[in-house]
Amino acid sequence: MKIYDWPTGPYPARVRIALAEKNLETAIQFEKVDLWKGEHRASSFLRKNYSGTLPVLELDDGTFIAECTAITEYLDNLDGNPILTGRTAREKGEIHMMNKRVELEVLDAVSVYFHHATPGLGPDVELYQNREWGLRQRDKALRGMHYFDSVLKEHAFVADDEFSMADIALVGGMIFASLVDLAVPETCTALLAWYERMKDRPSVAKQLAIQA
Amino acid sequence: MKIYDWPTGPYPARVRIALAEKNLETAIQFEKVDLWKGEHRASSFLRKNYSGTLPVLELDDGTFIAECTAITEYLDNLDGNPILTGRTAREKGEIHMMNKRVELEVLDAVSVYFHHATPGLGPDVELYQNREWGLRQRDKALRGMHYFDSVLKEHAFVADDEFSMADIALVGGMIFASLVDLAVPETCTALLAWYERMKDRPSVAKQLAIQA
Repeated sequence: MKIYDWPTGPYPARVRIALAEKNLETAIQFEKVDLWKGEHRASSFLRKNYSGTLPVLELDDGTFIAECTAITEYLDNLDGNPILTGRTAREKGEIHMMNKRVELEVLDAVSVYFHHATPGLGPDVELYQNREWGLRQRDKALRGMHYFDSVLKEHAFVADDEFSMADIALVGGMIFASLVDLAVPETCTALLAWYERMKDRPSVAKQLAIQA
Repeated sequence: MKIYDWPTGPYPARVRIALAEKNLETAIQFEKVDLWKGEHRASSFLRKNYSGTLPVLELDDGTFIAECTAITEYLDNLDGNPILTGRTAREKGEIHMMNKRVELEVLDAVSVYFHHATPGLGPDVELYQNREWGLRQRDKALRGMHYFDSVLKEHAFVADDEFSMADIALVGGMIFASLVDLAVPETCTALLAWYERMKDRPSVAKQLAIQA
């Protein structure tokens, strides 16, 4: 299998952490797509993923699977023991809900802020920006951090009291926030403590070493 | 189980179609949340779903599951036969990819157009609008329709050559486009033919009767 990604990208980080959690890293070849040169917008890449986002997984028969959640579903179910996406109907429901909520309220919001209200990937790549929208999404992300802080005051993990892809998504959000210098509010003590615990996981520690 | 929704909402339609496909309709009570009065923005509802979106599923023990994909995962896995979300790793990966792509490229884009570049739910509910962003999302949705037309020229269904939650999501997109008078381009003949076939499914026909 092959993954097209950019090693320090916050979305690629989600799949790299999932690969490490599933001990699948040696099964994968990586090929860089240079975000800063806009290679993800080139027609050759759009044939792999219409949406032009990273990462993309290519199976050995040439099938492409894009979108972090979809790639994680695939990888997590290969061994019949889906520890990241949920084993029961209830776990699947709760994990998918929180995974999507992390995207909506933090990760995707930080991404829109980056691409629309900061220089983003630079003028040659960011051909359209809507600064007002970007700034609103920054404020949404900060509110989202307070929401997840309230969740983590009551629970050790983002979904269902076990580590899951929802935690991985929020780690992606923390990575992206750090890249754009959006500080987690100091009052979010439970969120900050959760992130320190996440950094102790080998899968997360390895990715943060790549980011550094 | 109880579902909080608005019967003609395009996102609620996705879960209602999934319920019909799984023969689970009689297991559910429905409670209306009036979008046009902004009841989904009230603090009592936000305690059920922080993101303030419909529908939300409440389990008998009081657990809330929000987000269409998460609710569909839950309902589809209750009987151990996940026909809508995928039985194998590969099916799960392909279905989740296309389900998310429908959201990104059509359904959510039409939703942003509605809420930002039309009167939406009215001035008492739409407290902030970004018209330029809304119009860009309308254009994205039209491009997305051409993309799914190209997929459906080659395949009978949106993902993996079988009916799945990705088809249901695109039906949601078609319903929303119709509500906002965004016509599917006539040249999208495969998309239009697919939608006619979808209307023959009892689950979809029943929902379209509610919409009418």
